[in-house]
Amino acid sequence: MPQSRVTIIGNVGDDTKFYGLHISPDLDIVAYSLAGMVDPVKGWGVKGDTFHCQKTLQRYGYQTWFNLGDRDLATHLYRTEQLLHGKKLSTVTSEIVSSLGLDVRLLPSSDGMLQTYVSSGSRRMDFQEYMVRFRTKPRVNGVFFKGAGSAKPAPNVIQSIIEADGIIISPSNPIVSIGAILVVRGIRSALRKTRAQVVGISPIVGGKTVKGPADKLMKALGIECSAVGVAALYRDFLDALIIDQADWKLAPRIRSLGIKPVVTQTLMKTMTDKVRLARIAVSEVKS
Amino acid sequence: MPQSRVTIIGNVGDDTKFYGLHISPDLDIVAYSLAGMVDPVKGWGVKGDTFHCQKTLQRYGYQTWFNLGDRDLATHLYRTEQLLHGKKLSTVTSEIVSSLGLDVRLLPSSDGMLQTYVSSGSRRMDFQEYMVRFRTKPRVNGVFFKGAGSAKPAPNVIQSIIEADGIIISPSNPIVSIGAILVVRGIRSALRKTRAQVVGISPIVGGKTVKGPADKLMKALGIECSAVGVAALYRDFLDALIIDQADWKLAPRIRSLGIKPVVTQTLMKTMTDKVRLARIAVSEVKS
Repeated sequence: MPQSRVTIIGNVGDDTKFYGLHISPDLDIVAYSLAGMVDPVKGWGVKGDTFHCQKTLQRYGYQTWFNLGDRDLATHLYRTEQLLHGKKLSTVTSEIVSSLGLDVRLLPSSDGMLQTYVSSGSRRMDFQEYMVRFRTKPRVNGVFFKGAGSAKPAPNVIQSIIEADGIIISPSNPIVSIGAILVVRGIRSALRKTRAQVVGISPIVGGKTVKGPADKLMKALGIECSAVGVAALYRDFLDALIIDQADWKLAPRIRSLGIKPVVTQTLMKTMTDKVRLARIAVSEVKS
Repeated sequence: MPQSRVTIIGNVGDDTKFYGLHISPDLDIVAYSLAGMVDPVKGWGVKGDTFHCQKTLQRYGYQTWFNLGDRDLATHLYRTEQLLHGKKLSTVTSEIVSSLGLDVRLLPSSDGMLQTYVSSGSRRMDFQEYMVRFRTKPRVNGVFFKGAGSAKPAPNVIQSIIEADGIIISPSNPIVSIGAILVVRGIRSALRKTRAQVVGISPIVGGKTVKGPADKLMKALGIECSAVGVAALYRDFLDALIIDQADWKLAPRIRSLGIKPVVTQTLMKTMTDKVRLARIAVSEVKS
C-alpha cells in the first residue's frame, strides 16, 4: 500500500501545553513511527534523543514529568510558532509529516479545541497528567471531552471516511484515544454512512490491555472489559472486529452484535507481527 | 564587592525572535558569565551545550544561523512563556538571574520594544543578522534604534544610576551595545545628573576593537575610531576613561575633552587580567 493512499485520523484530545509549547503526542507518535524516528523502547519521542533542555528547565522551576527530548522539541517549537502565526493544526501537521519525508495524509480529528479530562474523586486532570504524571494510578470515575460540543472535524476528515476504500480502527484506547475522535461532530455518523468496510482491532486481550489504561477506564465507566465491550462501543459502525486467539470464546457474542469476529494472533512484538496483523486488517476491509 | 551591591544595566537592542522564542543575547551572556555557565571559548551560550534541537529544526525549514544550544533553549522557553503570560522582561530577567543562583541585579535597559538595526545600502537588517548571519561583512551606512522614541527605562534603571556609588561603562560596543542603552529615554540624562563617578573602559585599542564590529561601525558613522572617539561619544557624562597603554599618546586629547584618562593594560586574556582591570575601574569610581 503506497503511503499516498493512506489517510490517518489522529487524536488531539491528549494535546497539551508545556513551557508554552503546543504538544500533540498522538500525532507525533504516528509521524515519528512512520518516519522510523520513534524511540523503539519508550514508544514515544525520538530515538537516541537527549534531554538537556528539559534538565535545564528544572532550574527555572518547571515541572518536568512530561519528557520532551531535545530533538523532539524542534517539532513542538515548529508547531507552536506556526499555530501562533494563525495556521491550522491540520496544515502544520501536514507540513511536519512532509518535512519528515512522509507521504501519508495525517489528519488531526479537529482543528478546534478538544481536550480529554479524567475525573478522580473531586479532582479533574488532563489526560497527560493522569497518564504520565500520575502513571494511571488515580481511581477514575469519569471521562470528559472538553470542547466536544463545538469541535468541528478538520478539513478532509469526513470526506476521507465517506470516500475510503476501507477503514481500520487501530487497537488504541477505545475510551480516550478513539473515543476522543468519535465525539468530534460528524465523525461517528460518517463511519455509519460510509460504504467502506470498517474493521476494528481489539486492544483488550484476555480482559486486559497490552499497554495503557484502557482496561481501567472501561471498568471505571462500567463497560465490560473485553473484546465484546470494545465491539459494543463501536457497534453502530463496525463491520468486523479482529480479536486475539486468547479470546476465541467471545466470537459468538461479537457476532450476535452484528459484527464479524476475526480471530487471530494480535500481539505485536516484532515487525513481522505488525505486518501480519496489518495484512489481515487490510484484507478484511477489502472483503 | 558582594553581588547584592551590583546592578547591571543590559542592552535589549539585540533582542530578537527565533522559532517563536524571545532571545535576549546580551542579558543571557551577562547572566551565564556570572553564573560560570558561559561557554568560555565561544563567549556565548552554555558551556558544553549540544545542538540537537536546532539540527532537527533544519528539517522544518528553519534558518539555523543563530546558534541556540539545547540547554540555552531552556532560558528562552522560560522567558518566552513568562512574557506571554504578561510578565515584564525586567521581572523575567530577575527570575532567570536568581534561578541561576546569582544575587546581582540585572536590569534590561527597557521593558519596551527597542531594536537595533543597521543599514547597508538599501537593505536594513537587525543586529543579529548583521553580526551573526552576515558576520559583520556588509558595509554599514547607518545604525537605527527602532522604538527608541517610545521605549521607557525599566523599573529601577534611572534610580540605580542616580543613586549609584559608582558607574562603570563596560568596554562594549559604544554604538550598538552601549548606544542602544543610552537612547532609552532618561538614561543619558541620569548619567549626567548622577553624583557618582562615571568611568568608561575603551573597547578600542590601537584603532581596532578586540572583538566585534565597533571599529567598523564607528568608521561607518564618521566617528574617529580610537579611544578619543569613544571619549567623545560619552563626553557629556564621562568622568574618566580607562585606555590601553598602547594608546598612551591619546591621553592629552582625552583630557582636553574634560575626561580623566587612565592608562593601563586593558586586554583581558585571563581571569587575572579581568580582576585587575575591574579593580582599577572600581578604584576610579571611588576616587
